[in-house]
Amino acid sequence: MFRSKKTGILVVALLTVLSMSGSCFAAEGDIDIADLQQGLDTVWVLLGAFLVFFMQAGFGMVEAGFIRAKNTCNILTKNFLDFCMASVGFFVVGYALMFGEGNGFCGFSGWCLAGAESGADVPLFAFWLFQAAFCGAAATIVAGGMAERMKFVAYLVYSLIISAFIYPVIGHWIWGGGWLAGMGFSDFAGSAVVHTTGGVAALVGTFMLKPRAGKYGIDGKPKAIQAHSIPLASLGVFILWFGWFGFNAGSTLSVGNGELIGRVAINTSLAAALGGIAALMTVWKRFGKPDLSMAMNGALAGLVAVTAPCAFIDPWAAMVIGAIGGVLVVFGVGILDKLKIDDPVGAFPVHGICGIWGTLAVGIFGQSSLDLKNDGLLYGGGLAQLGTQFIGIAAVVGFVVVSMGLVFKLIDLTIGLRVSEKEELQGLDISEHGMESYGGFQIFSSM
Amino acid sequence: MFRSKKTGILVVALLTVLSMSGSCFAAEGDIDIADLQQGLDTVWVLLGAFLVFFMQAGFGMVEAGFIRAKNTCNILTKNFLDFCMASVGFFVVGYALMFGEGNGFCGFSGWCLAGAESGADVPLFAFWLFQAAFCGAAATIVAGGMAERMKFVAYLVYSLIISAFIYPVIGHWIWGGGWLAGMGFSDFAGSAVVHTTGGVAALVGTFMLKPRAGKYGIDGKPKAIQAHSIPLASLGVFILWFGWFGFNAGSTLSVGNGELIGRVAINTSLAAALGGIAALMTVWKRFGKPDLSMAMNGALAGLVAVTAPCAFIDPWAAMVIGAIGGVLVVFGVGILDKLKIDDPVGAFPVHGICGIWGTLAVGIFGQSSLDLKNDGLLYGGGLAQLGTQFIGIAAVVGFVVVSMGLVFKLIDLTIGLRVSEKEELQGLDISEHGMESYGGFQIFSSM
Amino acid sequence: MFRSKKTGILVVALLTVLSMSGSCFAAEGDIDIADLQQGLDTVWVLLGAFLVFFMQAGFGMVEAGFIRAKNTCNILTKNFLDFCMASVGFFVVGYALMFGEGNGFCGFSGWCLAGAESGADVPLFAFWLFQAAFCGAAATIVAGGMAERMKFVAYLVYSLIISAFIYPVIGHWIWGGGWLAGMGFSDFAGSAVVHTTGGVAALVGTFMLKPRAGKYGIDGKPKAIQAHSIPLASLGVFILWFGWFGFNAGSTLSVGNGELIGRVAINTSLAAALGGIAALMTVWKRFGKPDLSMAMNGALAGLVAVTAPCAFIDPWAAMVIGAIGGVLVVFGVGILDKLKIDDPVGAFPVHGICGIWGTLAVGIFGQSSLDLKNDGLLYGGGLAQLGTQFIGIAAVVGFVVVSMGLVFKLIDLTIGLRVSEKEELQGLDISEHGMESYGGFQIFSSM
Repeated sequence: MFRSKKTGILVVALLTVLSMSGSCFAAEGDIDIADLQQGLDTVWVLLGAFLVFFMQAGFGMVEAGFIRAKNTCNILTKNFLDFCMASVGFFVVGYALMFGEGNGFCGFSGWCLAGAESGADVPLFAFWLFQAAFCGAAATIVAGGMAERMKFVAYLVYSLIISAFIYPVIGHWIWGGGWLAGMGFSDFAGSAVVHTTGGVAALVGTFMLKPRAGKYGIDGKPKAIQAHSIPLASLGVFILWFGWFGFNAGSTLSVGNGELIGRVAINTSLAAALGGIAALMTVWKRFGKPDLSMAMNGALAGLVAVTAPCAFIDPWAAMVIGAIGGVLVVFGVGILDKLKIDDPVGAFPVHGICGIWGTLAVGIFGQSSLDLKNDGLLYGGGLAQLGTQFIGIAAVVGFVVVSMGLVFKLIDLTIGLRVSEKEELQGLDISEHGMESYGGFQIFSSM
Repeated sequence: MFRSKKTGILVVALLTVLSMSGSCFAAEGDIDIADLQQGLDTVWVLLGAFLVFFMQAGFGMVEAGFIRAKNTCNILTKNFLDFCMASVGFFVVGYALMFGEGNGFCGFSGWCLAGAESGADVPLFAFWLFQAAFCGAAATIVAGGMAERMKFVAYLVYSLIISAFIYPVIGHWIWGGGWLAGMGFSDFAGSAVVHTTGGVAALVGTFMLKPRAGKYGIDGKPKAIQAHSIPLASLGVFILWFGWFGFNAGSTLSVGNGELIGRVAINTSLAAALGGIAALMTVWKRFGKPDLSMAMNGALAGLVAVTAPCAFIDPWAAMVIGAIGGVLVVFGVGILDKLKIDDPVGAFPVHGICGIWGTLAVGIFGQSSLDLKNDGLLYGGGLAQLGTQFIGIAAVVGFVVVSMGLVFKLIDLTIGLRVSEKEELQGLDISEHGMESYGGFQIFSSM
Repeated sequence: MFRSKKTGILVVALLTVLSMSGSCFAAEGDIDIADLQQGLDTVWVLLGAFLVFFMQAGFGMVEAGFIRAKNTCNILTKNFLDFCMASVGFFVVGYALMFGEGNGFCGFSGWCLAGAESGADVPLFAFWLFQAAFCGAAATIVAGGMAERMKFVAYLVYSLIISAFIYPVIGHWIWGGGWLAGMGFSDFAGSAVVHTTGGVAALVGTFMLKPRAGKYGIDGKPKAIQAHSIPLASLGVFILWFGWFGFNAGSTLSVGNGELIGRVAINTSLAAALGGIAALMTVWKRFGKPDLSMAMNGALAGLVAVTAPCAFIDPWAAMVIGAIGGVLVVFGVGILDKLKIDDPVGAFPVHGICGIWGTLAVGIFGQSSLDLKNDGLLYGGGLAQLGTQFIGIAAVVGFVVVSMGLVFKLIDLTIGLRVSEKEELQGLDISEHGMESYGGFQIFSSM
C-alpha cells in the first residue's frame, strides 16, 4: 500500500516543463491518454465484476428466502460452493473453451489462462474476473429450481461441469467469436448466454428430480409451500437489481461511449421497475392479492429480459420489454404448476422464459438508428435480425436440454440426484449438513 | 448538486479554438481528454446512482426491522413498489418538472425525457438515473412513518404523486434553476430537497393516520412496540451509510475537483459516526441503557444533517453537525411520543428534523474560504446565507405540509388511508397480501 | 459484449504519429491529464473506501449469525459503535501516529489531520477515509472472539484504544515508513497490519475472558453452541468477499498500473474460492458432514491469507495460498477447542493464523519477476524476504500480545471485562441493552 508521492509530483513537473518547451514532446502526454483510457476501462470492468459477484449473495438470499427453513443452510451451501467451483472450472478449462482460439463450436487455447488473451481492452485478469462472475451466475440459477431435494454432492459435481464446459461453449458461440457471433446473433449482456442457459438447465433438473414431497396432493392440485423469509428474499432481489447494473452496464467493457453506458443503465432500471409493476398488477387481478414474491420475480423477469437488448433500445422499449417479462413470469409460474413441474423459486419462468423473451426482443425492438458499430456491438437490425435471434436461442435451448439432460442423467445413475424421502422430510440442513439454519428458533415440521 | 454547464462548455470551446490555432494536430488528443473526462464523470455519477439505488434496500431493511413481523411483508411491498412507481412517475412527468425549461416554480419541457437535457456534464440517461434514485429515496422515507396501518393501494397512489409532482417541484426550486436557486439557497446533496421533503411528508401522513392500535394506553402513556428484527435494521443502516457515500460524493456530479469529493466523503462518514455516538450517549444518560436502535437512528440523523453542508465545511464541523443531529433525534422521538404522534421508525425525527437542521447548518458552518465557485456550487456565506437557508427551508416545509396534506386528504376521502382495525390487528401481511413474512416461524399476536 | 481491440490500437498509433508532428499547445492537454489521473485515482481509492466500509456490515452479520440470538443485539451494537469510535480515534490521533512525520516507531504530526499529508497521490481526505475503514476492520475483528460475555462499556474503551494507538503504531512500522518498511517488510494490503493485529488481539481477549458459561462440560469436552442464523452469517461472508475487492484492489491506491489491479482482483477471488473448497473438503473428511460455517470461514481464511501477497503472485499461487488457509482454519478451530480457548466465531484462526500465514507466504510465493518497483511496492524477494517476513510478523504478534494484554488487563481491573454470570445466562441483549433482537420471536434459554 506504500507509494511514494514523489514519482507523481515528478511526473507532473516533467510534463509541465515538456509542455512549455516548444517543439513538443507531446508523445508522453498522448501515451498517458491511452494508459488513462485503459485504466478507466479497467476500473469500470472491475466495478462490474465486483457487482456481478455480489449478485451471488442476491441469488443466495432469494433462494433461501423462498424455501423452507429446514433446507436453508443446504441451499446457501450450494450457492456458496457453486461460485467457488465455478471459479476453478472457469479458470482451468472454461475460459479457454469460451475465449481461446479454436473453431466455431469452442476455443482450444489458454488453459489455466496460460497464454490466454483478454477479450477486451482491459487486462486479462480483470476481464477473466468479470466473465467468471457471469459464469457463476449461470451456475447458481439452477440451485433454486432444484431446491429442497437435490443431493449436495450431486450439486457440486453439476456446478463444476456447467461452469467448466456447458456455459463456456455457449459463451464461445455468442461472445467468443463462435458460429452464432458469425451469424450476427446479438446478446448484449447475456439474456441467452447466462439466463437462458441457467433457466433451461434448472427446468431440465427440476423435471428430472420430480416434485417435492407433498407439493401435489392426491387430487393433483398444487399446494403452496410457504416462503420462510420474505425479508431475506426481498433483500436478495434488491441486491440482484443493484448487481445487475454491473452486469449490464459493465458489459460495455469500456467507458469510451458514455451515451451507451447511460442508455444501458437507465434501460436496466426501467425494465425492472415495469416488470415489478406488471407482475404485481397481473397477480392482483388474477388472484385478488398484491403478492410481493410475484412482484419481485417480475422485477427479476424485467431485468433478465432487458439484458440482451439494453444497448440497442430506447427507454420506452425497455419499459415495454420489462412489463411483458413481468406478465410472462406470472403465467409461466401458473403453467409449470399445471404441468406439475415443481420449480420452488421460479427459476425457469424468470431466467428461462424471460431469457428467451429478451433474446427475441432484440430483433423486435432494436434500433439500427443507434449507431453502435464503433463500439463493436453486434446488431444488424430488421427482420433478418429477428430470424437470427430465433435460430440462436433455439440452438442454446436445444444444446442445454441435451447436454444438461445427459449430465443430470449421468449424475443420477452414479451419485444419485435426489435425497431419500426421509432426508427430505427431515430437511436437508440436518440430513446433509448436520446443522440447523436457525439454532434455537427453528420449528421442524413435515411441510 | 447544481453545476453550471458553462464551465465545461467553455473549456471545450477553448480547447477547440486552441487545437485549430496552430500547426499542430493536437485536436485529437484534446478531444480525447474531454471524452475521458466525460467518461470518468459518467462512471462517477453512475456509481453514485447504483449506490443510491441500493439505499432502497437499506430503507426496506430498516423499516421492516423496526416494525412487527406481522406487517413486514406489507412494508417491504410498499418499499419495493414505491421505487418502481417513482421510476415511472419521474420518467414521464417528474424530470420535466424538475429540470425542464420553465419558470421559477417548475419546469415544463422534456416529458418522458423527449428533448430533455442533462443537468450536468454527463449523458442525460446517466443523470436521470442518479436523480431518479434520489426521487425514490424521498418517496420511501414516508413508508416508515406511516407503517403498520396504511392501506397498500393508498400507498401506491401516494408514491406516484410525490415522485411525479411534489418532489420534482421542490427539486426545481433548488436544483433545477428555480426561485430558491436564484436566491442562492444552498443544499449540496439534499437535506432539504430529499430528506426534509420525505420527513415532513411522513409527519403529515402519520399525523393524519393517527396512532397504531394499542400504541397509547388508556392512561395516555406510550407503550413500546418492539422491533421484530434488530439484525435486519442494523444491516439496513449499514447499507444506508454505504449508499450515502454515493448520495453525497456522487452529488459532485464530476470528478474534476478531487479535493471536493474527498471532502464530501470524509464529512459524510464522520457525521454519521458522531451522530451514532452522540445519540447513544444521550439515550444512555436519559434512559440508562445504550440503545442500538437509537444509535443507528443517530447515525442516520448525522448523515441527513451533513447532506446539505458536506461540500462547504471542514471535518470538525461535520462532526459537530452530526453530533447535534444525533442528539436532536433522541429528543425528537421523545417529543413526538409526548404529542401522541406515532411514527414507528422515527422517519420525521431523522429525516425531517435533521433535514431542517442540516439545511440551516450550511449557513452556520459553511466556509466561504473554500473556493468552490469553479465547481458551480451555490454558497454565498455569511449571515445572508443563513437567512436564505431559513426562507428556503420554511418554503419547503410549508409546501410539503400543504400539498401532501391535500394529497393524503384526497386519498383518505376516496380510497381511504387506513386499514380497518380488524385488519390492523391481524397484521397487514395476511389482510392485505394474503401471506406471512416468516412462514413456519411466525407468531401472530394482537401486539 | 464483443469488442474489437483494433480500434483502440489504431487510435493510439494515430495519436503517436500526430504527437510527433509539430509545435503545439499541448500544455493544456498535459495538465488536464495529470488532473484526470488524480481524479481517476481518487475515484478508485474512494470506491475502495466505500467497499471496505461496507465490510463492517459483513463483520456484523457474520458475528451476529454465528452466535446466539440472546446476544445478537449486543454484538451488533459493538460492531456498529466500534466503527464510530475508530473514526474518532483515527481522526484525532491515529492518522498522525501512522502517517505523520516521526521516527521508526511512530509518527508525531498531523493530529486531527491538521497539516497532515496524504500517503498517496490522492487528496488527504480520500486517503484518510480509506485508511480509517481499514482501522475499523482491525477493531471489529475482536468483537467476534470476545462475543457473548464481554461488557459493552469495556468494548467501547477497547475499540477507542486499538484504533487510536495500537493499530496506527503497527501501521506506521509497515505502511507509514517505519522500521519494518525500512527493512523491506512486505504486506501489500494488510494480512499483518489489519488481520494479524485484529486476530491476535482477539486471541488475547478471548483467553483473558475465559470460555462462555457451558462451553466446556465437567468432563472438559467442548459443547457446540449453535449459530442462531446461518443466513445472516452467509450474507455477511458474501459482503466481506465483495468488500475485500476494495480492500485489496483499492490498496493499489492508483489506477496507473491496470495489470496490477487486475492481478490483485483475480488473486483475491481465487484465494477465497479455494479457501472455501479446501475447508469444506477438510471438515467433510474429518467430521463427515460438509459444514457451511467452516466453508465460509475457509473463504475468509483464503481472503486473509492472500491479502499480503496478492500483488506479487500469479493466480496459481493465490489458489495454493488460499487452499492452505482453508485447511489451517479447520485445524486452528480444533486446536483452540483442545486448548479450551473459546473463540465463538473463529476470529483467531481466520484472521490471526491466516494473517501470519499470508505474511509469510509473501516470502515463499512472491515473484521478483513481476517488476513492481514503478508502483513503489516493497518486495525484494528471495530467502532474505522470507526472513524479513518472519521478523516482521513476530514483531507484530509480540507487540499486539504485550500491548493488548496490558490494555485488557487495565480494563479488567477498572471497568471489568466480563459481564456477571447472571447477565450472561440472561443474554447480553436484555441485561446490557434492555431489548430483544427478535421481539415477538425470541426464545430465551440457558444455552
